[in-house]
Amino acid sequence: MDATSDTGRELVRYRTILGYRRAMPSMHTWDESTELFAHSVIGYAIERCRLPKDPRWGAPQADVLVDTFARTISAGGLGAHEAMRIVREVMIPSCRPMDDPMNLAYVPTAPTVAATMFDLVVSASSIFGGNWEAGAGAIAAENQVLRWLGSLAGLPEGAGGAFVSGGSAANLSALVTARHQHLERHGRRGRLAFAATTEVHASVRATARVMDVDVVPVEVDDRDRMTGPALRAALDAAARDGEGPDVFAVAASAGTTNAGAIDRLDEVAEVCRERGLWLHVDGAYGLAALCSPDGRRRLAGIEHVDSFGVDPHKWLFAPYDCAALVYRDPGLATSAHSQHGAYLDAVDRSEWNPSDYAYHLSRRARGLPLWFSLATYGTDAYAEAMDRTIATARAFADAVEAHPAFDLLLDPELSIVLFRRRGWSPDDHREWSRSRAKDGVTLIVPTTFHGETVMRVCIVNPRTEIDRLVPLLDDMAAWGPPA
Amino acid sequence: MDATSDTGRELVRYRTILGYRRAMPSMHTWDESTELFAHSVIGYAIERCRLPKDPRWGAPQADVLVDTFARTISAGGLGAHEAMRIVREVMIPSCRPMDDPMNLAYVPTAPTVAATMFDLVVSASSIFGGNWEAGAGAIAAENQVLRWLGSLAGLPEGAGGAFVSGGSAANLSALVTARHQHLERHGRRGRLAFAATTEVHASVRATARVMDVDVVPVEVDDRDRMTGPALRAALDAAARDGEGPDVFAVAASAGTTNAGAIDRLDEVAEVCRERGLWLHVDGAYGLAALCSPDGRRRLAGIEHVDSFGVDPHKWLFAPYDCAALVYRDPGLATSAHSQHGAYLDAVDRSEWNPSDYAYHLSRRARGLPLWFSLATYGTDAYAEAMDRTIATARAFADAVEAHPAFDLLLDPELSIVLFRRRGWSPDDHREWSRSRAKDGVTLIVPTTFHGETVMRVCIVNPRTEIDRLVPLLDDMAAWGPPA
Repeated sequence: MDATSDTGRELVRYRTILGYRRAMPSMHTWDESTELFAHSVIGYAIERCRLPKDPRWGAPQADVLVDTFARTISAGGLGAHEAMRIVREVMIPSCRPMDDPMNLAYVPTAPTVAATMFDLVVSASSIFGGNWEAGAGAIAAENQVLRWLGSLAGLPEGAGGAFVSGGSAANLSALVTARHQHLERHGRRGRLAFAATTEVHASVRATARVMDVDVVPVEVDDRDRMTGPALRAALDAAARDGEGPDVFAVAASAGTTNAGAIDRLDEVAEVCRERGLWLHVDGAYGLAALCSPDGRRRLAGIEHVDSFGVDPHKWLFAPYDCAALVYRDPGLATSAHSQHGAYLDAVDRSEWNPSDYAYHLSRRARGLPLWFSLATYGTDAYAEAMDRTIATARAFADAVEAHPAFDLLLDPELSIVLFRRRGWSPDDHREWSRSRAKDGVTLIVPTTFHGETVMRVCIVNPRTEIDRLVPLLDDMAAWGPPA
Repeated sequence: MDATSDTGRELVRYRTILGYRRAMPSMHTWDESTELFAHSVIGYAIERCRLPKDPRWGAPQADVLVDTFARTISAGGLGAHEAMRIVREVMIPSCRPMDDPMNLAYVPTAPTVAATMFDLVVSASSIFGGNWEAGAGAIAAENQVLRWLGSLAGLPEGAGGAFVSGGSAANLSALVTARHQHLERHGRRGRLAFAATTEVHASVRATARVMDVDVVPVEVDDRDRMTGPALRAALDAAARDGEGPDVFAVAASAGTTNAGAIDRLDEVAEVCRERGLWLHVDGAYGLAALCSPDGRRRLAGIEHVDSFGVDPHKWLFAPYDCAALVYRDPGLATSAHSQHGAYLDAVDRSEWNPSDYAYHLSRRARGLPLWFSLATYGTDAYAEAMDRTIATARAFADAVEAHPAFDLLLDPELSIVLFRRRGWSPDDHREWSRSRAKDGVTLIVPTTFHGETVMRVCIVNPRTEIDRLVPLLDDMAAWGPPA
């Protein structure tokens, strides 16, 4: 640039205004200190992947944590090494390692090494996963995973959708699509509703609140499942009210979080066909089992759904957060979700834009860690890992059944085992749970099943070994009042 | 374990059933091959952070991409090295590097090195960010960032909320809270609505569809802003219809995506106070400017809001995806969003559960990369980086104004510059845009402003240098029909 030309003189002036002689802020450059802390940060992450984590964790009093972290926001910065010290010494010890093999509470997680590592590539690549134009390569890879899931479920080849942040987002996007299609077809005929059992995940009820629709409650059978007759009865009862709602969908479950119950999808699908209702299946936890032939057998009827969601961060070995949403006919989702704005005029809508299939626009290409891991290890390795967790749950249920101090409450459909320690009060359950969590032996947290406080074990980690589970039964048997 | 005891014999039997003599599937162990591919994956990520990215990108035909990635899902797996080869050679070259300093289209991104690196720690740590019990250390850190944002906005000390996946999720969660509070107070009085300008982000309109509420449209002024008088007029007009909707909130903008317009927040807040309406501000892009004193000056009135959202993945130097949602009174959000389920009985609700403040349950602790970067570099570095982008936009606007071939259409309020190349047709704009994108010179994409096709530049990257922007004006001036 010639400093005597007009443009050149302008540039000299701008450089002066901007103080360009000062160094570029180091936040955005790679210098020697970056090199040093990158080693430290990456080294720690590798340690987290490679070594067993300390299963004892516990938050200090909230005010202590708040004070510690309040000091981390300062004008001058702490530097990466001090920030990492706080991470190692304060942050991580007060977070539960969700992938510890003896963490059996709620729904744990068990990401593969490849999936975890690849998350760094996703972050470092600054990929915009919202539309094809910006993220074609990433979206094409994600779509293969969605296609794989769709074909495992027996959906036609055109099935597809998008990766979203979690099961809540998947349920919402699918049910908004269902409502949109219903309103296009029938117009507004009164208060809208979808049908769901009382056992569905809390997020389905939150979804109804967000959408401002009612829920038609469906009774479950003794295994916590929605059946065809119960659904038909619930719909008839709602209609008989006279002032009954306009039902547009059924939100069924394939693996409830509490009991792992799988609704009778074949029967439910038949009722949906009869009544022209959209069938969405929340399979956040359970539909992961599609990846093994044995698991698939347990999910008969899934081929009839209009949409389903599954969270790979639960039981498909992907890091947080990642949920897959798949539609039988993705075109129906486009008309419900496409966002238009002047600044989006230039977006080519002829390709696959994930933002057209769910309620989101900016989007991390969050399906990529799963894609990379699946590409690396192959689908057989996934089936094997899945079968291992199912077999471990089965073996544990057998051990519960064989043990004189326990009642098995529900034969596991997938990998959740509910059981009762004979002679224990609700407080006994809670106290044992707290004590063993504190010692780092295991995290097993009681739940409520048919009104009773019971023990619940959820196995999603191939590293959870039956050798370490069975002795827990002896421990519980010996603890507290006699069985 | 004694193999002659009962439990010991049982274990031998289970081990046989489970085939435990076979090696643990390598997906979940760290072995020699893991060691090797970890180097390859991490090395590539570091290269992406450290070296300039190739700004030329382009998707092959969709069917070519689909074919390539279809072959990546196989029974036996490709191995990590082959998967990485496909990433390097096919995936990344067909994704736009959103953080390239010459990417000036839509809203780009510019994550810091520390934020990017820390995402690996987040993934490797398997932190469940949904509730305090599981993720106290992570949530305490995130909350400090939310508190920092709240105090920059001038909200009281009790302000807080949660990190969510994007601006759409933030808008939805805030407006659902607003509606919940409105219904608690007034009951259902008819069709519900919130007010918003026609210029608000497409996601606000999508939010209305998801919530099934109407939007009361508010006229913008000549700078695309909502003003107090226009809002009052719109509300009065809607009410005069007789059958007017029950308005529960105003969704205002602090930095529209198209023009960077900031609504007259002080005036709008006054109308909201008058009418008892919730004021939510979508500041996905613009509220990032709160981090510098100069930016804050442009956002006067933000201290009056009931809730706001800002996406750190846009202009606060965090990787995808990360949005902060802050409420003046977080307690109001809890009553709208808390999810309950039997399996959640054991969750302690006395601490800060991010799932109580937005529509999500499982959650990546996605605020941590921003926290780590902020802790490392300090708030002054953020102010400096912010000021640099604002100054670059200002300097570019001055250059546009000084250049005889251009009209500056809107003095930039923040860092978006809209301008017209005199004598160009809409097609000229689009052709120049495509040609320079293809060459990797810059990505500048036209938009529509007041019905006209114009050029739009959005600067969020401190590495975007005015020295490289000003020559683009000469290039446009020399291209196509004379000015």
